[in-house]
Amino acid sequence: MSDFILHSKLAADTFEVLSLKVSQLLLMNDARYPWLILVPQVSDMRDLHNLSAKQYHAVTQEIAQVSKVLESVTQAHKMNVGALGNMVPQLHIHIVARQANDAAWPAPVWGVGEAQPYSQDAAKTLVQQIASKLS
Amino acid sequence: MSDFILHSKLAADTFEVLSLKVSQLLLMNDARYPWLILVPQVSDMRDLHNLSAKQYHAVTQEIAQVSKVLESVTQAHKMNVGALGNMVPQLHIHIVARQANDAAWPAPVWGVGEAQPYSQDAAKTLVQQIASKLS
Repeated sequence: MSDFILHSKLAADTFEVLSLKVSQLLLMNDARYPWLILVPQVSDMRDLHNLSAKQYHAVTQEIAQVSKVLESVTQAHKMNVGALGNMVPQLHIHIVARQANDAAWPAPVWGVGEAQPYSQDAAKTLVQQIASKLS
Repeated sequence: MSDFILHSKLAADTFEVLSLKVSQLLLMNDARYPWLILVPQVSDMRDLHNLSAKQYHAVTQEIAQVSKVLESVTQAHKMNVGALGNMVPQLHIHIVARQANDAAWPAPVWGVGEAQPYSQDAAKTLVQQIASKLS
């Protein structure tokens, strides 16, 4: 992990939640949806299937673990998971809690309208709720 | 797997490629992008993280295996992987080969324009190319 540096776009758009065994967990600064981003701390990696078998296993376990926690914290109607990376080339996985009345439903969240930043208190509260269930 | 029935919408929009150990593999009938759909043959399942540990491991292995094959067959610029299921409630995973000049790039493929059906020959050729690398 020593060469890993978080992509500047991911850093700019998110709050840190915590570090898991392999991945950093980030909260997108968009109050329209509880939207986490899992970033495996592996250098020069763009696609999930290019991880080593050991890394792939660990990251897929983290995806399930984070999905369960976010679903529970938000009482989500549906979880959406995606690894796209067409714009930001650093491997990252979106884990989004959807509600049937949210701003994009039933479409995916990407590219829909403008992000609505959290208040400092709201972001802090959500980060703490999620982190406490993962640590 | 005995109670599993493929959702009618998935059946209507796709060609069968083959059955893997756990999942059926389908090709979306949209010639704009080589777009596979992996459907774990598990009844009443909506989210990846609700699979049993054994099923989850098997399905994530199939995601990596199919991603590698589709990337190789299509010489993709980037692979996109997503589990959304906001419209079709049966668990299914999208595995899409993207090119930097395709009809939606760099946006995700969902909800962009209209599907362009394959010719019978083109669909058959692509299905055979993919199936031969997986069987």
